[in-house]
Amino acid sequence: MRSRFAENVDRLAADLAAMCTGVESMMADASRALMSADTHLAEQVIATQEECDSAARQWEQTAFALLALQAPVASDLRLMIGGMHIAADLERMGALTTHVAEAVLRRHPAHVVPSEAHGILADMGRVAVAVAGETHRVLAQRDPVRAAALERADSEMDALHRALFERITSDRWEHGVMEAVDVTLLGRFYERFCDHAVAIGHHVVFLETGLAGDAEEGSAGEPLQRPR
Amino acid sequence: MRSRFAENVDRLAADLAAMCTGVESMMADASRALMSADTHLAEQVIATQEECDSAARQWEQTAFALLALQAPVASDLRLMIGGMHIAADLERMGALTTHVAEAVLRRHPAHVVPSEAHGILADMGRVAVAVAGETHRVLAQRDPVRAAALERADSEMDALHRALFERITSDRWEHGVMEAVDVTLLGRFYERFCDHAVAIGHHVVFLETGLAGDAEEGSAGEPLQRPR
Repeated sequence: MRSRFAENVDRLAADLAAMCTGVESMMADASRALMSADTHLAEQVIATQEECDSAARQWEQTAFALLALQAPVASDLRLMIGGMHIAADLERMGALTTHVAEAVLRRHPAHVVPSEAHGILADMGRVAVAVAGETHRVLAQRDPVRAAALERADSEMDALHRALFERITSDRWEHGVMEAVDVTLLGRFYERFCDHAVAIGHHVVFLETGLAGDAEEGSAGEPLQRPR
Repeated sequence: MRSRFAENVDRLAADLAAMCTGVESMMADASRALMSADTHLAEQVIATQEECDSAARQWEQTAFALLALQAPVASDLRLMIGGMHIAADLERMGALTTHVAEAVLRRHPAHVVPSEAHGILADMGRVAVAVAGETHRVLAQRDPVRAAALERADSEMDALHRALFERITSDRWEHGVMEAVDVTLLGRFYERFCDHAVAIGHHVVFLETGLAGDAEEGSAGEPLQRPR
């Protein structure tokens, strides 16, 4: 029989995956709202943000209580510490979907996305939803290999982000400054959304292996348990 | 005589304050580089980013080792958990100063800041440096009252951010789309920098009092130790 503590740990792991499903669906709705200038859907996304915040806060409270009362070690401790960062990343991803939704409302009844940026932003939305879905699988399966592969999806997003900037700043941009400002911020929101997914991948590598997951920053393979 | 463990805890607290001094000085340099289009200074800021990242990673490794080996409770546990978030916020603040510095290089030898946005961005730089200085004092003194007051400085930044957008999108904006895009992103970097300072304030309230610091999100006064 699993102990009460082990059940709590399992639930914490499952809750991270569940939070990610929520973020994925927020991102799907926000991107759909953006493409179709659907203010009703945008408002729904904004209304969900509080749930996302409160799930993250609840997660942290539960983990803190378990840390204080049970003093977990090894992989359980890593789940709580890595999970706190993951919960914070998921909360921030939710906030970024809300920013996308808010842009829809800001220009209503006008479309916030001018025709020239429509294709690239639609692609960014698709990549973001796919990345959130993959992040959910990484969290549900706690698969460090899959986690590290989130970087590739992020490269795709970075390429779209560069293409978006080239489009806005090219001589052929026929829209005004306000449209450029809106599209600049939207591009930034999508890009940051994926950055947080990559960070979650690093945290999953850490909580599964005890190794830092951010290889490109020169710390891969360095055990995090080593005191200085 | 203080125990070895207590000395480690003291050092962790002092290291957070020291990291913040580093971020404050990066922000001062980045803002000065931005105003004077000083590429040499901008490059210095960018070169410092690695130090900032590695200090945050080192902090987390030390805290994790203490958590694993000593199973701290009460205020020591809160320092490690709250401190992990604070270290992450400081690292992100450092990254945002680097983004400001990168903008200087991107348009060299042209000035990235057009004359019309010069005054507001100079003010944003001043507020950001002041906020970083105040965050340092909050961390050094671990003063929850002062921590909560960081919100006020953030309101000042938000007002400047709104003024910047009005300036860019007004009919009197005589610069091009590219300049507007640059200034939009710079404004966003400054605004996010202050958001992270506010988040640090919330974490200091938590680590000093055990209460959630983000009162405006409806969780003030709720003890974080309560298991669900």
